[in-house]
Amino acid sequence: MNLSTLKPNTSDITSETLEHINGYWRAANYLSVGQIYLRDNPLLKRPLKKEDIKLMRLGHWGTTPGQNFIYVHLNRIIKKYDLDMVYVSGPGHGGPALVGNTYLEGSYTEIYPEITQDENGLKKLFKQFSFPGGIPSHVSPECPGSFHEGGELGYSLAHSFGAVFDNPNLIAACVVGDGEAETGALAASWHSNKFLNPETDGVVLPILHLNGYKIANPSLLARIPHEELIKLMEGYGWKPYVVEGDEPMQMHRDMSFALDNAMADIKKIKNYTTQEDSQVPRWPMIILKSPKGWTGPKFIDGKPVENHFRSHQVPLSDPIDNDEDFKQLEKWLQSYQIGELFDKNGTLKKVYKELAPQGSRRMGMNPNTNGGLLLKDLLLPDVQDFALPVKSHGDNGPGDTRSVGAFLKEVINLNSKQQNFRLFGPDEILSNRLNEVFDATNRQWNAQTDPNDEFLAPQGRAMEILSEHLCEGWLEGYLLTGRHGLFTSYEAFIHIIDSMFNQHAKWLKVTAELPWRRQLASLNILLASHVWRQDHNGFTHQDPGFIDHVVNKKASIIRVYLPPDANCLLLTMKHCLKSKHYVNVMVAGKHPSPQWLPYDQAILHCSKGIGVWDWASNDQEDQTDIVMACAGDVPTLETLAAVSILRKELPELRIRVINIVDLMKLQSETAHPHGLSDSDFDALFTKDKPVIFAFHAYPWLIHRLTYKRTNHHNFHVHGYQEEGTITTPFDMTVLNKLDRYHLVQDVLKHIPRSESKNDYLQEKMKDMLIKHRNYIEEHGVDMPDVKDWKWDI
Amino acid sequence: MNLSTLKPNTSDITSETLEHINGYWRAANYLSVGQIYLRDNPLLKRPLKKEDIKLMRLGHWGTTPGQNFIYVHLNRIIKKYDLDMVYVSGPGHGGPALVGNTYLEGSYTEIYPEITQDENGLKKLFKQFSFPGGIPSHVSPECPGSFHEGGELGYSLAHSFGAVFDNPNLIAACVVGDGEAETGALAASWHSNKFLNPETDGVVLPILHLNGYKIANPSLLARIPHEELIKLMEGYGWKPYVVEGDEPMQMHRDMSFALDNAMADIKKIKNYTTQEDSQVPRWPMIILKSPKGWTGPKFIDGKPVENHFRSHQVPLSDPIDNDEDFKQLEKWLQSYQIGELFDKNGTLKKVYKELAPQGSRRMGMNPNTNGGLLLKDLLLPDVQDFALPVKSHGDNGPGDTRSVGAFLKEVINLNSKQQNFRLFGPDEILSNRLNEVFDATNRQWNAQTDPNDEFLAPQGRAMEILSEHLCEGWLEGYLLTGRHGLFTSYEAFIHIIDSMFNQHAKWLKVTAELPWRRQLASLNILLASHVWRQDHNGFTHQDPGFIDHVVNKKASIIRVYLPPDANCLLLTMKHCLKSKHYVNVMVAGKHPSPQWLPYDQAILHCSKGIGVWDWASNDQEDQTDIVMACAGDVPTLETLAAVSILRKELPELRIRVINIVDLMKLQSETAHPHGLSDSDFDALFTKDKPVIFAFHAYPWLIHRLTYKRTNHHNFHVHGYQEEGTITTPFDMTVLNKLDRYHLVQDVLKHIPRSESKNDYLQEKMKDMLIKHRNYIEEHGVDMPDVKDWKWDI
Repeated sequence: MNLSTLKPNTSDITSETLEHINGYWRAANYLSVGQIYLRDNPLLKRPLKKEDIKLMRLGHWGTTPGQNFIYVHLNRIIKKYDLDMVYVSGPGHGGPALVGNTYLEGSYTEIYPEITQDENGLKKLFKQFSFPGGIPSHVSPECPGSFHEGGELGYSLAHSFGAVFDNPNLIAACVVGDGEAETGALAASWHSNKFLNPETDGVVLPILHLNGYKIANPSLLARIPHEELIKLMEGYGWKPYVVEGDEPMQMHRDMSFALDNAMADIKKIKNYTTQEDSQVPRWPMIILKSPKGWTGPKFIDGKPVENHFRSHQVPLSDPIDNDEDFKQLEKWLQSYQIGELFDKNGTLKKVYKELAPQGSRRMGMNPNTNGGLLLKDLLLPDVQDFALPVKSHGDNGPGDTRSVGAFLKEVINLNSKQQNFRLFGPDEILSNRLNEVFDATNRQWNAQTDPNDEFLAPQGRAMEILSEHLCEGWLEGYLLTGRHGLFTSYEAFIHIIDSMFNQHAKWLKVTAELPWRRQLASLNILLASHVWRQDHNGFTHQDPGFIDHVVNKKASIIRVYLPPDANCLLLTMKHCLKSKHYVNVMVAGKHPSPQWLPYDQAILHCSKGIGVWDWASNDQEDQTDIVMACAGDVPTLETLAAVSILRKELPELRIRVINIVDLMKLQSETAHPHGLSDSDFDALFTKDKPVIFAFHAYPWLIHRLTYKRTNHHNFHVHGYQEEGTITTPFDMTVLNKLDRYHLVQDVLKHIPRSESKNDYLQEKMKDMLIKHRNYIEEHGVDMPDVKDWKWDI
Repeated sequence: MNLSTLKPNTSDITSETLEHINGYWRAANYLSVGQIYLRDNPLLKRPLKKEDIKLMRLGHWGTTPGQNFIYVHLNRIIKKYDLDMVYVSGPGHGGPALVGNTYLEGSYTEIYPEITQDENGLKKLFKQFSFPGGIPSHVSPECPGSFHEGGELGYSLAHSFGAVFDNPNLIAACVVGDGEAETGALAASWHSNKFLNPETDGVVLPILHLNGYKIANPSLLARIPHEELIKLMEGYGWKPYVVEGDEPMQMHRDMSFALDNAMADIKKIKNYTTQEDSQVPRWPMIILKSPKGWTGPKFIDGKPVENHFRSHQVPLSDPIDNDEDFKQLEKWLQSYQIGELFDKNGTLKKVYKELAPQGSRRMGMNPNTNGGLLLKDLLLPDVQDFALPVKSHGDNGPGDTRSVGAFLKEVINLNSKQQNFRLFGPDEILSNRLNEVFDATNRQWNAQTDPNDEFLAPQGRAMEILSEHLCEGWLEGYLLTGRHGLFTSYEAFIHIIDSMFNQHAKWLKVTAELPWRRQLASLNILLASHVWRQDHNGFTHQDPGFIDHVVNKKASIIRVYLPPDANCLLLTMKHCLKSKHYVNVMVAGKHPSPQWLPYDQAILHCSKGIGVWDWASNDQEDQTDIVMACAGDVPTLETLAAVSILRKELPELRIRVINIVDLMKLQSETAHPHGLSDSDFDALFTKDKPVIFAFHAYPWLIHRLTYKRTNHHNFHVHGYQEEGTITTPFDMTVLNKLDRYHLVQDVLKHIPRSESKNDYLQEKMKDMLIKHRNYIEEHGVDMPDVKDWKWDI
């Protein structure tokens, strides 16, 4: 439905409805306990036996009853207002809640028909949970209605915002766990409300679920004065409703009231906007304070368990060998009186079933949670329109990312109707020289503005906040719900989201194995402002190791590109924006730099991903003395400069120049889908000639990727060696021995030539390095002749 | 001084003092502009010439004048109240401010005598800034008084808290930049106040410095309603004072007033506590709203620059080639009227000099900012007292980290007078089974408590919050100011602080190269709850890649240990706690597991870091058929189980078993200080025999470390291959082919034996794998015989 025409009504809830809600909640709670403990006797039709209990009991009870409570209440408002709503479980450890609720509403059986709505299905549902060959204990990809696993904590709210951008009638109900609320990413995420456009985006309804405890500690927000918590949420710009207690019927009433009020607020805000009221809206949120392990055992061995951290995982730890535990478990299971809720076949009774929404209104079947169902391909312009003319190999270009800016501008224009592409960056879109995108769009910003602001507007395709966590989290949420995007960041600081990348890569890996899950658009990351050009910043801003981190994940998911110039970058970018279900990492420069390949040559080179640059080589087949390989823009320049020196000084030396755009070509075909076969690799790199390899990042990565290759022992890799400071661009390569002079020196070490000639050239290189040092320490800038290098085409 | 006896007085500031403060500020601002632009003519004794200007102008002006303003006002209160204060520059890009101020107060010249307090010194000071061979543009290790670089943003407040723990009379004045305030780590850091003990810890005085803009965007907190910002800070538990404006004299007055009031509040809180008032204190903080690029050019080319993001870096970008820029720069420099401030020799006049504190009260000379000066060695117990008795190799142990818990308890007891050791963890100290530490101490917690809480107290050695960022940031601050600590975390989620580790490792690398900087205690990280035992959590909790990340940093700084059992872990832990200026990463298990080495053997093994386990081997020197290598507790178990199978089934096969504790032994001695020589390595691993290597983490790391070794092509490494879910512990090894059966299969592939025997054993291994699969899918637990493995000693 259209959220601006909501008709909230807070007076229509009867005691009977509340009783039904409570019954539904009891059913969900029972299913949760059943999943954790039982492998048989799912309806307790006979007295509980020890054989009914799983030998290994895994899972998290503590958060589960509260999430069951939230779920049934969200069901109520979905039905009442015909809402398009998704459920994001921040405390995703509470898998039993989501599995149980999607079972009760029928989604689970629709997706997994063997889990039938009867006793037999219940038995399977229980047994499979946290069981080898079964399903994980968390709200994992296997769980219908999930697009956020919550195994690692902190990203629920950012994912929720990502989900509702450009989804004006979607509500993401986001349960924030009180443990999670202590994380950095979550603490920053509350501010996302300043980036939401009430008219063109949907709604995030945060439910801060304060159970009071984490694994073994109280949680912070449960232990600050009430008025401080309210101020905190108001300070973050939200309008909080508090629902607090442990008496179920009163809590049902209070929660219903709070949700109806929240709906009224949402309607008001949605209508404000259409009236062009400029006030920053104060969206509603709910603070739900309910006992951890609610309705579970109150005491075990005399120690409090309900409303205590002891209920975090599996409260009765030993029901097979400990009789007291066994008795308490039986009593606990019986306490839900499921005979009233399920019929004798084990099917939920109609009066309860009717509480759940139907079809795709069920949160377990909402298509936004299986984003590939909704994914529309991006309309992409012809790269040729943006290609730089290259008349000589080495023509100066204005900065490779600038061309991408022009390309992305057109991507934004072409998809302005689809509204399914956004750009994310930590205040670095301009710094990374994507300036032209602001000819087509603005940064979306719903906080205060000033007449001198630039490119800020209530609606825009660019999302900027100085938080890599939020950029990544928003983008992930946007992708997971079936849209496209690009994250640009400084190379060094992308490590801030290493762990988020891990979780997303894991999500992609598992969803790719589930037939009912559809492919998503790839997570595209452009790392500009890279290690070699941190002129203003120095050592702290130098770390090219993100790609080391990335290649640890499944080869079927990850792709790494190092385009040497603008035309190759453009082609790579288009390729990545078209691709599905990968994480694509592109590394590129933003500073003026040499351009190597005209458009037609770039196409050929990028389609192969790796290749010999004949125009720079002077070897013949089978008559190569040395291979000079390079990957990355700066290493390519230094390699070509070194080759020029060598060809001038040692014209008889037969050199083969290889450039690598697609890094995974280096790995063997059995290790990565892009990998070259051994014979192709040998044909390129020879079986026995020295390979001097100039690499953008840490040199060991090349060894790691190529260690199985025939000629690997002849690879000599130059890369970043963690040496750097504020200095000139060329000096950065010198400090790390990636510069042309060191490359030439390394070549001389590995070729058998006339000694006198080698000695002479070694000396000359040494002299050049001294000349360089003296020059920069006097002038503070590089010698003019190290900036470019040209070859006729 | 003792902060509880502070005598705040807010009425004593005269107009004359304010004028002097303003003069000092002008001097600092002038020095900042001078550093960015000038290489000559530092006192403007002659008209500015283009040759006076640096060819490359790098740095960040925007934040600088505001920080100069803060610095002189902090100087005032340091003198007035005789404070022990350090300055933490969150917006650390503003290097010119800190360099300039430490120069004005004399610290800079004391540390770098060549930068004299005269015209010649000024010239050098200016030229060296952001100049090849000079100093970085940020508040880097080279800058006196800095222990927080601020190159990457977000950690200033956490570092400040770490600095004042157990430093009851230290005040960390922490300038939080408005860009930084958007980061996740910083957003969570405000809550650190709940962990501060007013009696035994010092004070953090945050100064939220709202310049209004980041690189190219307004900052969020500058664009929310005033009352929202106040609520936010109050919600975080702080008492905010606002200083806002751009008229210098009024701002000086307001800032003085705010700081005097803050001092009064601090005194009050310090005294409350001694009266055992249980109220959670509301510490003061300051919100300083001043224009970005204050006192710089107001407009350039008709566009606003002061109070705009355009002042972020170098506002007049082209003063050499653009005459208008040149004129404006000259005017700008002259506007500070330095003739009034410096005498004709270029020395700051006495009336201004007297505003700065003396000796170690100067923030540039505070010994807390060069923590090694204050570092006292930890008193460490004898490991033997905690060693587990091991009668057979493979005796069952209660969980390796449990022994460390007992050891750490004693570390805490022994150092209870020194109060210079703390334990940090994201609510995982108990989960990681370090339970015994709570016999000696509590978790420090100054928020509300409940009678059912456990191990919470206003003072304690354990710091727990569910934020890896805060744990790491606090610990870094604690170490940087000369104390010791340990961070324990789940292995997978330590990636959350990848980027923080980077920055700390870079800090260690650079400080090690500065003779005046003293060595710090190592940053010790214990990764328990590792990839192989995530029984309750599954795939999202599996990532052993932190050590891949770590080994990218300088070899002189990083150490990685994989102790196979409790006794080795104890010895490793003691070794790490004694060490200086490293990052030590230890990976260990928390679950009951086999113990391999009695104490005396463990000493020998750990002192070598790598060695043959003779008791498990049956080869003779030069008569080895195969090497079975292992690193990590689970791989060690699987290797020994595989060896047992092989020795039973193929008794004639001569096997050598090697265990690695110190991973960096594998690298060559030229690459890492711990590296084995090639001859030692060859003696261990042979030059030509197959090596079946069972490794804790991603297998490629072993290839990366050993690729230069003679026998590398014979290495076959088994490790984590990104396969996992909720399943049994043994099945995790099977899914990743690290289990005994797969290891035996791999051995069979690489040894030339009678084919029939090999085939028989291959089949047997296949059968075992099928038997395993069937067993776990029926019972949900592992077959009983895969848990342990014993050998007589």
